[in-house]
Amino acid sequence: MLETRIAGYDYGKVGRSPLTLNDLQRLQETVGFTDDERRALAEAGDILEDEAENLVDEWRQIIGGHEHLARWFFGPDGKPDDRYKAAVRPRFVRWVIDTCRRPFDQIWLDYQYEIGLRHTPAKKNATDNAATPPLVPLRYMIAFIVPVIAAAKTRFERRARTAADAERMYAAWTKAVVLSIAIWAMPYTREGMW
Amino acid sequence: MLETRIAGYDYGKVGRSPLTLNDLQRLQETVGFTDDERRALAEAGDILEDEAENLVDEWRQIIGGHEHLARWFFGPDGKPDDRYKAAVRPRFVRWVIDTCRRPFDQIWLDYQYEIGLRHTPAKKNATDNAATPPLVPLRYMIAFIVPVIAAAKTRFERRARTAADAERMYAAWTKAVVLSIAIWAMPYTREGMW
Repeated sequence: MLETRIAGYDYGKVGRSPLTLNDLQRLQETVGFTDDERRALAEAGDILEDEAENLVDEWRQIIGGHEHLARWFFGPDGKPDDRYKAAVRPRFVRWVIDTCRRPFDQIWLDYQYEIGLRHTPAKKNATDNAATPPLVPLRYMIAFIVPVIAAAKTRFERRARTAADAERMYAAWTKAVVLSIAIWAMPYTREGMW
Repeated sequence: MLETRIAGYDYGKVGRSPLTLNDLQRLQETVGFTDDERRALAEAGDILEDEAENLVDEWRQIIGGHEHLARWFFGPDGKPDDRYKAAVRPRFVRWVIDTCRRPFDQIWLDYQYEIGLRHTPAKKNATDNAATPPLVPLRYMIAFIVPVIAAAKTRFERRARTAADAERMYAAWTKAVVLSIAIWAMPYTREGMW
């Protein structure tokens, strides 16, 4: 799957974001992301690479179970846009893997900003030429941190060699997810308040 | 301490927020906050009530150790405004306790919105008649989720009767904190994007 071309997956090919490595450094310091977490995240990647598809399916099940989460995937007919959902899915899977594997550098930062934009009117629907609502509201992006970290936790507990390893991977994953959401929030934020 | 009047602590006395119980219900469903979490959070309160002051001190130490976090507490002279810091502290402590103890109802919702406002130009400094920068940037509010949940975790692990209890309390606390931040984000968010 990793080698397959994913439509709309433009890692390394998007424009420069307004975010700087200095911004990133400060955010990493705030969540406490260090070289230890980078190593733990690489180990987490060995587990999540296998699990990424069923993780995304688990999150999708939560989304599908709540109209207030599902509706951002609906077409103008008020029904799930299955073509859109299918197009987004491999990129969502890829985000799991990239979060573990990609270095947190300017390219990563630029792409996180792009992911943020793709959840807002600036770019939602554009990649897939879809007609779903132009937004996923910020409050649900933030709140969804919980299912995203919880679902990974059960995989680490099941598959890491020791409980301590599972714990380290979970801590690193949590930091990386919160870091991502903090960046994705940028295009939602009023001028000067991000 | 709980009985002491805390200056500027206006729980139950602030105006009605634009947030509805329906908004709250949807957010609770998104983080998966159920009656079980409510019970676990009450138990967490038995531990955190004792620990709230040293939790806040631990967070303050992290904030103080990073200029990009500390500067929102600086006066116009570029030095920490100790009067402001002292005024905020008991409310920060009280937030820990309220998060565990207060029912999540309209009054709680209104006060979470007020807390959000007090981190933005709408209300920062007003309560304490201070002259610090008019904002704590949203990205640091989101990123600080990590220290806020991590510091509580060590208390649960140390003081809960069983590891399973500590785990339940930590999960409930994490959900409550993420819920709070999702609400605090509202005044930061562009029109229609929250």
